[in-house]
Amino acid sequence: MSGDQGLLKRINRMAIVRHVKASPGLERGNLAELTGLADSTVSVLVRELIDEGWLRADTSSGNRGAGRRPQVLTIDTTRLALLGAEVGVDYIAVAACNIQGEILFTRMVDYRHEGVERSVRDTSALVAEARAQMVADERLPLGVGVGLPGMVALDGTLRLAPNVGWRDVAMTPLLAEALRESGCGELPVFVLNDANAGALSEHVFGGPDATRSLVFLSSGQGIGAGIILDSGPHLGSEGLAGEVGHGIIEPGGLRCSCGRQGCVETRVSQRAISRMVTEHDEPVLSVEELGSRLERGDEAVARALRAAGVHLGLMVHNLLVAVDPAVVVLGGPLSRLGLLVDTALETVRRLAGDSPYHHGAVRTSRFGVNAGVVGAAASVLDHLLHPFAREAAAAR
Amino acid sequence: MSGDQGLLKRINRMAIVRHVKASPGLERGNLAELTGLADSTVSVLVRELIDEGWLRADTSSGNRGAGRRPQVLTIDTTRLALLGAEVGVDYIAVAACNIQGEILFTRMVDYRHEGVERSVRDTSALVAEARAQMVADERLPLGVGVGLPGMVALDGTLRLAPNVGWRDVAMTPLLAEALRESGCGELPVFVLNDANAGALSEHVFGGPDATRSLVFLSSGQGIGAGIILDSGPHLGSEGLAGEVGHGIIEPGGLRCSCGRQGCVETRVSQRAISRMVTEHDEPVLSVEELGSRLERGDEAVARALRAAGVHLGLMVHNLLVAVDPAVVVLGGPLSRLGLLVDTALETVRRLAGDSPYHHGAVRTSRFGVNAGVVGAAASVLDHLLHPFAREAAAAR
Repeated sequence: MSGDQGLLKRINRMAIVRHVKASPGLERGNLAELTGLADSTVSVLVRELIDEGWLRADTSSGNRGAGRRPQVLTIDTTRLALLGAEVGVDYIAVAACNIQGEILFTRMVDYRHEGVERSVRDTSALVAEARAQMVADERLPLGVGVGLPGMVALDGTLRLAPNVGWRDVAMTPLLAEALRESGCGELPVFVLNDANAGALSEHVFGGPDATRSLVFLSSGQGIGAGIILDSGPHLGSEGLAGEVGHGIIEPGGLRCSCGRQGCVETRVSQRAISRMVTEHDEPVLSVEELGSRLERGDEAVARALRAAGVHLGLMVHNLLVAVDPAVVVLGGPLSRLGLLVDTALETVRRLAGDSPYHHGAVRTSRFGVNAGVVGAAASVLDHLLHPFAREAAAAR
Repeated sequence: MSGDQGLLKRINRMAIVRHVKASPGLERGNLAELTGLADSTVSVLVRELIDEGWLRADTSSGNRGAGRRPQVLTIDTTRLALLGAEVGVDYIAVAACNIQGEILFTRMVDYRHEGVERSVRDTSALVAEARAQMVADERLPLGVGVGLPGMVALDGTLRLAPNVGWRDVAMTPLLAEALRESGCGELPVFVLNDANAGALSEHVFGGPDATRSLVFLSSGQGIGAGIILDSGPHLGSEGLAGEVGHGIIEPGGLRCSCGRQGCVETRVSQRAISRMVTEHDEPVLSVEELGSRLERGDEAVARALRAAGVHLGLMVHNLLVAVDPAVVVLGGPLSRLGLLVDTALETVRRLAGDSPYHHGAVRTSRFGVNAGVVGAAASVLDHLLHPFAREAAAAR
């Protein structure tokens, strides 16, 4: 089969999976109409997809007259698996889920990064653990997505991860080799920025509000955005879109770790909040610490979270007017602090007023702390479901 | 012919035009390869496109052996016309150009808007003048694009034009009727926001740097962005993307006409600059006035333009980090003031430093004062060249 025919077949197969995912219960005849493919082609491809664990066919319970009852198709959640890993600033997390986003395995370890090779090796060992569990459960792992705390260029190079000090690392081959050495064989690997992973958790596995366009804001040590537009990730001309934490919200304001003044991160990040609480640059208080101090009635923490919440709200407003996404999702560790989130939502409402400038909805992440790993796993499915987009990107 | 077949044919015809536009000098055989269409289909469609004035065929001057010399195809610039109109805050402009963006006719009148109906009538009368000229020159006008100084929803409703006081006007039928009454018959009409028009002037007729992704910043009475991503206009979930003038750059800052505080427009707009010069809200100095005062050595104007330039540069930086477009284009009346533009460019360079956050190019508009009308005309071609995108948007 020539390369073109192979691609065409993959496009048609995945179009069928996308249709069944969007509308469970379709019959083969519906798929022929929806895809424009011949009935016989649909039958062959559906048969393959059932054999490979993507779809299942059940006899409809409905009765439509005297004829044979038709088979309805749904996504098979029992035989395939997606693996995700998240290289956090001070942790590594892995997860496995089925192709509907139901979590089957998670593991998270606190971690202090040194050289990138060691972190890659330890991440791969954790991925191997998740993979082994899936294989033991008789599931086929389709690949692994790896979320990174920094800027990932279109070719998979980690351009800069400021909070762990890595720069210009070709992550994909490094991970592929470490995965082989961990016994994962030729597991396909996809690297992406952590905020883009968060965005994919919502886009691939989230509700219908997140399918067309959304901005996922991941706030924690830093703050970044994952952007989905026109039903796909918007990565930017070099893959660096979404670095909103280094947009300037306060000209001449506080000095940022990036060297500029007045970046959003100087107001919305664990370091910014800690500095407001302690009046010192160090230590950076953990989200757990901030949460428990708040529960104990610590007024300094409450003030700091309200101030950060106002700035988070301003940034959400700025994204709504500039990008006009259907929804903005607040995620990342800081989004677990209700006072911060509530203040941000209130700020957005106040700024919206009765103006027609935007009507975008704002809400918190559906997957909470797991958004990063689940989204990394989702990236594997997103790549497989859009083979053409992938070939096009590779050809650029 | 069924609707589906008609759409398919339009898609194939326009694919051919797009290929010839991108690579003048193609032969029929190249088009068959590029489109995947049969040689006979290509021949039929090319014949039609030549008959209708889209393409011209010339015998190649090259000699490739003993055989018949092949015909090379180029865009025919002599027989079709695109019309554009721009409803400015204090003027109406119209233009006609050929399908390569070469301007054939322009007309601009100072104008004081009152009711929207009168403005639509007067705009239509000017369009009729441009159309009559094209007909006299034996060109077929394909349609008219109309740029509006406000927010245009996906269905063509003008949601709000703050500087002329219009709100919730269904512009398309209003314009269509006025054009009929002006003797234009059933001229297809497309309405769009003025900054989006500017973006299309670059995207459709500009250089190769503007084909994939760009942000066009139009600054004058207000400031707005037209965004092109993944080779098409990014309009947002409701059509309201690009309202960057009402993003907040200075929390708690100056009061904006929209009621909020610290919007970009309070720092970068004719009103903001005039206020810095005169220390009064009125009058708003024209760009010509600002330019001639600057030439006469007016230090207050120089200071005001430098201050506005810094804020314009900050906004460009924020767009670069958030969206990562291939290029940001500075347009609108204020972009004629060199000191403002130079200060903005210097600010962007300073903020970029040696960081990998963005490498987007920044430059001024290719069409200068005509970007709005030329872009409005370009929108007609953009709609025709992408029939599928248009059907899909209409079906939403």
